Amino acid sequence: MEGEPTLRLRVFDLNCWAIRYLSKRRQERIRLIGDTLRREGFDLVLLQEVWSEQDYRELKVKLADRYPFSHYFRSGVIGSGLCVFSRFPILDTLLYQYSLNGYPYMLQHGDWFCGKSVGLVVSVWESEPLCFPSLQLHAEYCRDEDAYLPHRLVQAWELAQFIRHTSKAADVVLLGGDLNMHPEDVGVRLLRGWTGLRDAFAEATRFEGCKNGCTLVPDNRFTNKSELLPFPLGIRIDYILYKAISSFTVKCEELKTTTGPAPGTDIPFSDHEAVMATLHIQRQGQPAGATLGTADLALADVVTEARTEVDVGLRAAQRQRYSSGRMAVLALLLLLLQATAALGTLAGLGTEQPFPKLSFCLLAFLALGVLVLATGLHLFHTKEVKMLHGTEDQMSMALRALQERP
Amino acid sequence: MEGEPTLRLRVFDLNCWAIRYLSKRRQERIRLIGDTLRREGFDLVLLQEVWSEQDYRELKVKLADRYPFSHYFRSGVIGSGLCVFSRFPILDTLLYQYSLNGYPYMLQHGDWFCGKSVGLVVSVWESEPLCFPSLQLHAEYCRDEDAYLPHRLVQAWELAQFIRHTSKAADVVLLGGDLNMHPEDVGVRLLRGWTGLRDAFAEATRFEGCKNGCTLVPDNRFTNKSELLPFPLGIRIDYILYKAISSFTVKCEELKTTTGPAPGTDIPFSDHEAVMATLHIQRQGQPAGATLGTADLALADVVTEARTEVDVGLRAAQRQRYSSGRMAVLALLLLLLQATAALGTLAGLGTEQPFPKLSFCLLAFLALGVLVLATGLHLFHTKEVKMLHGTEDQMSMALRALQERP
Repeated sequence: MEGEPTLRLRVFDLNCWAIRYLSKRRQERIRLIGDTLRREGFDLVLLQEVWSEQDYRELKVKLADRYPFSHYFRSGVIGSGLCVFSRFPILDTLLYQYSLNGYPYMLQHGDWFCGKSVGLVVSVWESEPLCFPSLQLHAEYCRDEDAYLPHRLVQAWELAQFIRHTSKAADVVLLGGDLNMHPEDVGVRLLRGWTGLRDAFAEATRFEGCKNGCTLVPDNRFTNKSELLPFPLGIRIDYILYKAISSFTVKCEELKTTTGPAPGTDIPFSDHEAVMATLHIQRQGQPAGATLGTADLALADVVTEARTEVDVGLRAAQRQRYSSGRMAVLALLLLLLQATAALGTLAGLGTEQPFPKLSFCLLAFLALGVLVLATGLHLFHTKEVKMLHGTEDQMSMALRALQERP
Repeated sequence: MEGEPTLRLRVFDLNCWAIRYLSKRRQERIRLIGDTLRREGFDLVLLQEVWSEQDYRELKVKLADRYPFSHYFRSGVIGSGLCVFSRFPILDTLLYQYSLNGYPYMLQHGDWFCGKSVGLVVSVWESEPLCFPSLQLHAEYCRDEDAYLPHRLVQAWELAQFIRHTSKAADVVLLGGDLNMHPEDVGVRLLRGWTGLRDAFAEATRFEGCKNGCTLVPDNRFTNKSELLPFPLGIRIDYILYKAISSFTVKCEELKTTTGPAPGTDIPFSDHEAVMATLHIQRQGQPAGATLGTADLALADVVTEARTEVDVGLRAAQRQRYSSGRMAVLALLLLLLQATAALGTLAGLGTEQPFPKLSFCLLAFLALGVLVLATGLHLFHTKEVKMLHGTEDQMSMALRALQERP
């Protein structure tokens, strides 16, 4: 070991809220973000919700000399919205798309079309691999009646599993992104417990920014004020998490968030605040991050809680699968009945037609429409049931493994 | 190292062709497979196309004492069809669903509904992790005009990336499954080159079974004879691949395939032949499987070839996206025109109705149907374009990395 080399890694993480035609003052904000990143010179930039490839290309051109390495993750109908800019070479990337991500018929929420994913970037420092996943989980639309909670828990579980399986050979794992969950939520506890990742906000020696590290605050002119009414200080849903594996230690020297308008302008970067961490990475003899084994009991509780929520979602999905299937069968029966009546009339069995042609035709089309829609829904909910069931199985396996540990 | 412990690992791999209501003599064959596995006592059993969970449960009960550990991978509308039975504890599992898998409107091929995936099982021997992915790739329906080739190449690439990223901490990686590709096909060369996996058939000291290791043979009563006409000996599309990482060596002592009817009966296990390998795993000082670096040039050629094919698929998908989008716009225009005409009539602008009501109504419904269908297709092909483009990007990055290596 060549005298314990150290690295001060400056990380920038932001949910950019850059939806074409929908996000306010998008181009102006993208320009602002690009200028700031160029000026500040971070080592690693993790951006989410860069939905337009055009915006990515613009940033790439602007940042080419400061951040020579970058990657844009493509997925779903619209894309994953994830991109990474790095001062260190990017050796390899991998995209993992969550198996569940909202409902195609909830057009107003749009999560289904996005193909939300976690993107993994493998980078290198002093010929040691560093592993940087960046991600966004399913949004929360209503905290009280949160129909998406099981989907978000499946995503949190898949994310945790993905990180565990892919980071085994990395020395440092750094996760940045919008988890769409509060720090004390079961999904965040599951992710942290199952992977051993530490929360930069909780570990930081110095902190500067919005109170409690909030990243969705009422002071930001783009946030939806009514959604934040129960949380006058705002909420913290964007995170930088990290852990060291093997013979490395990572410490969070400083964590900052932006606080509304960017310096010298009247607008913020996004409806989310950016999170900026300065991490101190050092090679050492002592392996760090081995906290996983010590907290097995607490972890088992978290996994149990998450499994219960997934089970609730599973039951709801099963009910929806059943009712959409029944609807499809009814529509099919109606169509068959109509076909029989029409054939009967054609064959001259009935002397006069019981219905006017137009109503008959309209009814047939209606039945056909219901049949197609209900079949589609049935297929979708069947898939949902499978994935929820599969995750529940995996969680049970994990629980058994935890309980059997000596 | 405690005197070089060795393990003789007996692996069984079979595409079971167990589709409810469709596969011939399914229940009989599942019983037969169960009996054979129970009698033979393999160490690891990788099964594909076990589409019905009922069949898995039946096997699980029957094999409980010989193979105490098992896992069924759920995904997609129908499922992944993958399951694993093991004599060694299964520590953890992970499912990775390919981003592209055929077309939803190709109902007769059904791949889209299956959620084809690779399932990863992490097991343990002598407290060393062993990593066993099992999988099935998209089927090939017509070798001459293979519209699915780009999808299969994306799957092969994703599979290779998945194995590379997840197996870094494993000592032995063993992949069994139906690749739906011939040994010399670009997808198989890509997978082998990019992961460093070795083909058990090519490496086996002893071989016994169908000529050339074929697993889809005309002698099997369930195979489609017309599809195999150009290949009188049959084709080899089921594989057992392996590699050793770190301080292990793996040798394939023996490879066998079944040859038609199972012993003592008149029916084979499936339309595919089973592949059975006996592997000799030994802990050693010398790291094995480091053949990847030596063949960089050949690997670059394979990646280039694969990228070209993906590019062909990308262009086709872009064309389809364009034409479905145009169709949707035309249907929308027709609907708007009709709406204008109807409003005009209602407002009394036109004194008499130009069309009979029924035809007018039928045309509107037709336009609506086309609009819905074309929009769905447009969304699907948009996703396809994104994924093909993303894979092409990743392959380009891999090529650059290969070319820049000293």
